[in-house]
Amino acid sequence: MSSNYDRQALQIHYNLHGKITVTGKAECDEETLPLFYTPGVGAVCTFLQHHPDQAGAYTVRGNSVAVVSDGSAVLGLGNIGPYGAMPVMEGKAMLFHAMAGIDAYPICLDTQDSDRIVDTVCAIAPSFGGINLEDISAPRCYDIERRIQERINIPVMHDDQHATAIVALAGLINSCTVTGRSIRDLRIVILGAGASASGTARLLIAYGVTHITMVDSRGIIHMDRNDLDPNKRELALLTNQYGQTGQLSDALDGADCVIGLASGGLLSKEHIASMGPDPIVFALSNPDPEIDPLKARAAGAAIVATGRSDYANQINNVLVFPGLFRGALDSKIQKITTEIKLRAAEALAGLVERPTDDMILPSVFNPRVVPAVAASVTGTQTDAVRSTTASVPLV
Amino acid sequence: MSSNYDRQALQIHYNLHGKITVTGKAECDEETLPLFYTPGVGAVCTFLQHHPDQAGAYTVRGNSVAVVSDGSAVLGLGNIGPYGAMPVMEGKAMLFHAMAGIDAYPICLDTQDSDRIVDTVCAIAPSFGGINLEDISAPRCYDIERRIQERINIPVMHDDQHATAIVALAGLINSCTVTGRSIRDLRIVILGAGASASGTARLLIAYGVTHITMVDSRGIIHMDRNDLDPNKRELALLTNQYGQTGQLSDALDGADCVIGLASGGLLSKEHIASMGPDPIVFALSNPDPEIDPLKARAAGAAIVATGRSDYANQINNVLVFPGLFRGALDSKIQKITTEIKLRAAEALAGLVERPTDDMILPSVFNPRVVPAVAASVTGTQTDAVRSTTASVPLV
Repeated sequence: MSSNYDRQALQIHYNLHGKITVTGKAECDEETLPLFYTPGVGAVCTFLQHHPDQAGAYTVRGNSVAVVSDGSAVLGLGNIGPYGAMPVMEGKAMLFHAMAGIDAYPICLDTQDSDRIVDTVCAIAPSFGGINLEDISAPRCYDIERRIQERINIPVMHDDQHATAIVALAGLINSCTVTGRSIRDLRIVILGAGASASGTARLLIAYGVTHITMVDSRGIIHMDRNDLDPNKRELALLTNQYGQTGQLSDALDGADCVIGLASGGLLSKEHIASMGPDPIVFALSNPDPEIDPLKARAAGAAIVATGRSDYANQINNVLVFPGLFRGALDSKIQKITTEIKLRAAEALAGLVERPTDDMILPSVFNPRVVPAVAASVTGTQTDAVRSTTASVPLV
Repeated sequence: MSSNYDRQALQIHYNLHGKITVTGKAECDEETLPLFYTPGVGAVCTFLQHHPDQAGAYTVRGNSVAVVSDGSAVLGLGNIGPYGAMPVMEGKAMLFHAMAGIDAYPICLDTQDSDRIVDTVCAIAPSFGGINLEDISAPRCYDIERRIQERINIPVMHDDQHATAIVALAGLINSCTVTGRSIRDLRIVILGAGASASGTARLLIAYGVTHITMVDSRGIIHMDRNDLDPNKRELALLTNQYGQTGQLSDALDGADCVIGLASGGLLSKEHIASMGPDPIVFALSNPDPEIDPLKARAAGAAIVATGRSDYANQINNVLVFPGLFRGALDSKIQKITTEIKLRAAEALAGLVERPTDDMILPSVFNPRVVPAVAASVTGTQTDAVRSTTASVPLV
């Protein structure tokens, strides 16, 4: 579905030779050079040697994020390695600056060994104020994120797990407003059990959702399956409270909502028709959604969201990562907690004053998105957000 | 000597919150976002997965250098760690762009273990087109540089060893022109045996200098000493052809040239007076030279050079690293060879049309420096350089 962009994208990347540039913030001349470089810089070095916690105030560190990938699970393209991953990581660095004024650099790793990834990221951490892990395959990504965060005192976030989850939760909050439901009572099916699906399930549970059924390629995830890795085993414990077994169609039967985070075309019209009344359908696989939005609507879906910009209701993690790291850098937190993620989802949802079935989320170009998400880091909402969240029912 | 800059340097670093910024090369709007990011970027990813050698043409990689340090030997400040090192590495990144349009990012490492440094730099190499190692202490720096270069196919250069050596050789070539000597016959004493001193000794030898004596804190380096590490043992083999023993004063007695790469104040007026007629004195320790230039001139020095910008004849590695990596990136070489370094020194020397005792090197702000040094990578000198090198006697 993206082929019409392909030639143009290749051309613009080749013409620009990449999308980011690293420039000085001031002129280097005979007056400034002795200050920015030897001999003057020595005083700054000595100061930071004795006050390393001040490095963020005197160097790029305080405003910078490393966008790190091993290229093992890039977009829907799979394990394409570090060179294949570079255009996405550089694109994220570009967006970090365009959206939130953050100085981000893409770090694509020539290794897919978890120990070496953890060790490398911890080794380069003094140069950055935050670590955005990206497109690292499951289940390795869970351990890698946890182990890095345990070793360094700057926030580490695996975007695939958490940013998608935050946007999906925001979209779901507003979908409930539109369809007059309570999100806590929703029967939700999550199709997929990779990084995004896991992150979304965990965040929905933290928000208070009690009825989630997850489905992977072998069917419904339940405790009696003996083919589950440790992450899926934990998800089996956290979800599926009635111990349902069977396939996707069994899970969908009568459900209120399906969140597709698997791959294109897995949902049929019959699947949607088998769900409860006015179902909410998030078909988020990229570039090909689990079901064509028009087909889903024709089969009875009250609200359809996808990951694509050419349909209404785009679930795009660009809505989250620039603002979340903006807030994290500004308030110098050491970790992005679950509470922060929940507040970010509420802040995002609150930016849509009157949600409708084709507007459950703000545009990625809405200038209020980054300040609102950034403010959710400390919980001190800006006036702009507070005035709109007032119209959103707290669930 | 640098205290008058200290307050100003701290203030400007704090005001700017660092010296570099990472920005997009184009606007991110509704038209370009689908090309720079999903879905369009997928085509670029797939292309680079299959043609990783093309990553430089489609991403920042082709124009980027990592400025890497472990903070173990920063300026004359010693082992001040990664946070202390950041202002220098960020300053180099700033200069890389200001001087040569290179997109460089500072990478300061939270480890001083050689194996881990090698492993980390090799792991992040896919994001960069070159690796500039900086301020890593001797003798670890030799092995670290060699081992990284053996494992990756982009140029790796430890600036302290090689850039200083190239500028010193260039200055020496023109000092010989000014004083009417042949560099090959010069009796040279190198004071110091660290990274810069080692690199300079090796490059001078490669250029054809036959009579070098090195002096470390325990005296003249010779084969009968049993306190030499492997690098100094190799230097003992390569230098001191007459097997001289003794202290600094023994080495200087009757010498034509001394190159100080040790620490401030080690040379006295008496030392200079004991040298041969019209001695050449390079007192390159920073920020305090081995001898005050005025004192050295008063004691008979024909030419004095320092590392400082506030005296004539500054030996500043800014004259080398931007141009050398500019040339390396443009011509896609995998290694910066000794031949390239020798050509770079000759190119630099050639930029001074009529060397005098207080102008043996071009200014760091001379716009012809970067193109001339860059051209030396392939050996295809620009017209601008060729026209001036014609006036430099080939030694």
